[in-house]
Amino acid sequence: MAGDYIAIDWGTTNRRAWRMSAGGIPDEVAKDARGILSLTPEDYPSEISALRERLGDLPVIAAGMVGSNRGWREVPYVDAPADIADLARGTLELADFGVRLIPGVALRSAGRADVMRGEEVQVLGAIAAGLAPDDALFCQPGTHNKWIATADGRVSDIATALTGELFALLRGHGILAGMLDGDVADGAPFRDGLSRGAGARDLTVALFEVRARVLLGRLAPADAAAFASGVLIGADVGSRDDLAGREVQLLAGGALADLYAAAITHAGGRPVTLDSERAFAAGIHRLWELTQ
Amino acid sequence: MAGDYIAIDWGTTNRRAWRMSAGGIPDEVAKDARGILSLTPEDYPSEISALRERLGDLPVIAAGMVGSNRGWREVPYVDAPADIADLARGTLELADFGVRLIPGVALRSAGRADVMRGEEVQVLGAIAAGLAPDDALFCQPGTHNKWIATADGRVSDIATALTGELFALLRGHGILAGMLDGDVADGAPFRDGLSRGAGARDLTVALFEVRARVLLGRLAPADAAAFASGVLIGADVGSRDDLAGREVQLLAGGALADLYAAAITHAGGRPVTLDSERAFAAGIHRLWELTQ
Repeated sequence: MAGDYIAIDWGTTNRRAWRMSAGGIPDEVAKDARGILSLTPEDYPSEISALRERLGDLPVIAAGMVGSNRGWREVPYVDAPADIADLARGTLELADFGVRLIPGVALRSAGRADVMRGEEVQVLGAIAAGLAPDDALFCQPGTHNKWIATADGRVSDIATALTGELFALLRGHGILAGMLDGDVADGAPFRDGLSRGAGARDLTVALFEVRARVLLGRLAPADAAAFASGVLIGADVGSRDDLAGREVQLLAGGALADLYAAAITHAGGRPVTLDSERAFAAGIHRLWELTQ
Repeated sequence: MAGDYIAIDWGTTNRRAWRMSAGGIPDEVAKDARGILSLTPEDYPSEISALRERLGDLPVIAAGMVGSNRGWREVPYVDAPADIADLARGTLELADFGVRLIPGVALRSAGRADVMRGEEVQVLGAIAAGLAPDDALFCQPGTHNKWIATADGRVSDIATALTGELFALLRGHGILAGMLDGDVADGAPFRDGLSRGAGARDLTVALFEVRARVLLGRLAPADAAAFASGVLIGADVGSRDDLAGREVQLLAGGALADLYAAAITHAGGRPVTLDSERAFAAGIHRLWELTQ
């Protein structure tokens, strides 16, 4: 099958490229670890050529950190509230290469500032494909967990939490290093952590408590990682006061998504797991159509 | 002058030893970086001998991490509420070495757990010397900031915040690394950070905002460290809701203490700077008398 174009979700660490049919159906995929941190700006033309050798000599549309100031070319952010037509209008065409780069979205409000690149395609794609309603709250766990709210099919709010990064830093360095190597799964220690972290204004005190609880015999050393993860994810989820009775669209799968689903349920919300690749395909295809 | 005994404040990284007169006046001091992390349990007898060669062949009384499970001998914690007589009763006598080790204090309450070793001598010493009232709130900034409340001259509450450690981890690793190398001092960016961090339930979101504000041109790169420090110290100080109109006894000096003083004032409290060495001397001398 010839395919119509190549769609790329080009992130910080990972890259996923699909050959797409004219109807927006992915029919072949290439996944690797050639994210932007492993590349210099000079590398991109040869990277595109290599993908074309593999997936076909087709035009390319790419979203994610490839359009950041650490990627190939910087594509200015589109301001929230932003819908998929706004993203299409902000697309940067690299005509010499037959490549279109999708912009990210910036939140500039009186008290807050936030940015994203790549997640907006999944979110607006999920809405375009009817996987999520126009007014929704999305959660995309990862090293940096993203909360993305939409209203009338537009991205209206973004909050990025350093949750996963902090857990990794604390596990690798500092006073808690060596205490956080146990398994992390949903269970009593994780739930205890959720209860301690949820709504906490004293997160850094709660983190020292991991050590104090172990020293005082209140927490088994093997459970310390699960408790600490619960504190951090509990604080992340508990920072929102709008979850009770609300659906949360989880754009992830796997163990970390399971922990967030448990935390969202603990906070009174109703997690709904979406297929993030299907959402991306729907979003990027709509962008492909809008940028013809 | 012969002196009467040697008092040691033996911490994780640093060690301070004083030759004390019978009246509790320090007359000679030895300060070095021979904290417990640089020693094994076998090293302590020779360390004591070396201090005696320098300060006199005198009995020794020591407080701090030397009595922890990573120090020389573990001295069980005394439970809060604890006064100085409780500390004296919990002292471990190493008769073969002519050394007394002071216990730390543990908080075991329904919802919280915390510990300290060394700060309790300063706190109870400040009260014994009349530097602070019996009912007081102490703050000892450092890698781990300690909040210590006293009631009727007893340590009644402890909260340890990982504030300084988190700042160092974020400066050295992860998404904010390379953004936090600017100077940190009290000023507009630090104050903006205080306002963002104070009372925040979304600390990890506020930390990502450092990056977003720089990317969106709302924060000068040179000011990012001061803003991030403000967020973290603001969250630390703001985790207490009992500061308005209240004196806070600051057991520290220098640049970090100045930042905490600004944050406490920002939160409506009244910082009072204490001489932490004088407080330690008063506390350890009272313990010396009580353990005769």
